Amino acid sequence: MPEHDPAKKWFRCTDAERAAFEAGIKLGAVYHQFVGLAVDRKGVEAVERAIEASVRAQPCVEDVTVRIDRKAVEGGAGPYGYVSLAAEMLEVEVTVTYGKATAVGTLRYVPELRYPLMYIKELKV
Amino acid sequence: MPEHDPAKKWFRCTDAERAAFEAGIKLGAVYHQFVGLAVDRKGVEAVERAIEASVRAQPCVEDVTVRIDRKAVEGGAGPYGYVSLAAEMLEVEVTVTYGKATAVGTLRYVPELRYPLMYIKELKV
Amino acid sequence: MPEHDPAKKWFRCTDAERAAFEAGIKLGAVYHQFVGLAVDRKGVEAVERAIEASVRAQPCVEDVTVRIDRKAVEGGAGPYGYVSLAAEMLEVEVTVTYGKATAVGTLRYVPELRYPLMYIKELKV
Amino acid sequence: MPEHDPAKKWFRCTDAERAAFEAGIKLGAVYHQFVGLAVDRKGVEAVERAIEASVRAQPCVEDVTVRIDRKAVEGGAGPYGYVSLAAEMLEVEVTVTYGKATAVGTLRYVPELRYPLMYIKELKV
Repeated sequence: MPEHDPAKKWFRCTDAERAAFEAGIKLGAVYHQFVGLAVDRKGVEAVERAIEASVRAQPCVEDVTVRIDRKAVEGGAGPYGYVSLAAEMLEVEVTVTYGKATAVGTLRYVPELRYPLMYIKELKV
Repeated sequence: MPEHDPAKKWFRCTDAERAAFEAGIKLGAVYHQFVGLAVDRKGVEAVERAIEASVRAQPCVEDVTVRIDRKAVEGGAGPYGYVSLAAEMLEVEVTVTYGKATAVGTLRYVPELRYPLMYIKELKV
Repeated sequence: MPEHDPAKKWFRCTDAERAAFEAGIKLGAVYHQFVGLAVDRKGVEAVERAIEASVRAQPCVEDVTVRIDRKAVEGGAGPYGYVSLAAEMLEVEVTVTYGKATAVGTLRYVPELRYPLMYIKELKV
Repeated sequence: MPEHDPAKKWFRCTDAERAAFEAGIKLGAVYHQFVGLAVDRKGVEAVERAIEASVRAQPCVEDVTVRIDRKAVEGGAGPYGYVSLAAEMLEVEVTVTYGKATAVGTLRYVPELRYPLMYIKELKV
């Protein structure tokens, strides 16, 4: 992110709302860019690092960690020994800052909901 | 969206921040799901409707419109008469509500930035 | 496809092999472009038509049909009433011609393999 | 690939046509899974390795190399310092074997066509 945000004037919201918005973009991007990808045990770490690299390339990102469930990759492998990456296998945490606001967005499978939930774990100004 | 949000307890933010977050997810999803798609003049309307249908299927979405630049589709066609959908060709406006908050998120190419910008056009509580 | 294939000179193979190659591209494209898409009962038909439109836009395609499993869409819906499109829900048949060769490529879930298989159902010259 | 192909009986084609088909799937997959990804100079190598890992995870793949055009990544960067991966930036070569057949499939931008072409560079039995 450049020091002066070149897109600032298009936004009608607070810094905290902007941080929340940017966190949502990043999680939506990871999900819809990577779900369906062929992954096997040998390749899973390279895929995690690439997802992190791709998130880090985007504006406002302070930090990001991506983990893919090894058990799901090994246990779910089909007749050819790989799986199609599903959102349920992903755990993503991204920290986004804008102005004085910091948002931590998470994507992870929530067993209680049986759903890979994207949520705001923390938002402070 | 069901009347009672089953995921409410995982969020640490206001309704307005949640609406901003949800708008970000939807725009990130459209971009990263559909960019790269093969489109030609005959198919462009079907693609617009499908993107809208897919956004509408997601939580908190009140309304959505998607437009793909016809000139770019026709003028940019390669040797086989189609284009690969680029973010620069897309104009998306999504209205998201959460509790008492409503956010309007937009994705459109901003010539001044030479960039397909996602931004919050409006956010009211 | 234009009458004279502008890319012909780059290929080192027969017309039948080219038809098989082109069928593979189309099925790989559908899978990796659309898996992960949010779909609900109301939007499923629009999504089918858009996938077909996108395949038809590509070179060598004679015909294509796409079907998404309604039961999977309705029965698998999560807490917000939609599903993430999985390859297992898709049935795609694409007919590709090149020169005198015609290939019919299929993507469908094969219960015996527990796998969404892409295969060549027919290839004639 | 297991020694005995569990899907063999569904295919109506020669080994060479199968190899061509499988090469097409892999190139279609790379294109439609990864185009649109956010990439910057720092992350480009991680992305190349992940694409290779994902291709290698799939059936029949003997070898694969992926290169992303550094000049395009650096020169094309927008206001936030990254690019959206376009097919024009990709050079992919995948070697696929099936039975006694080996196919080399390529995706690369061909300036003469102004088009990112997928083609069969070599096919031998």
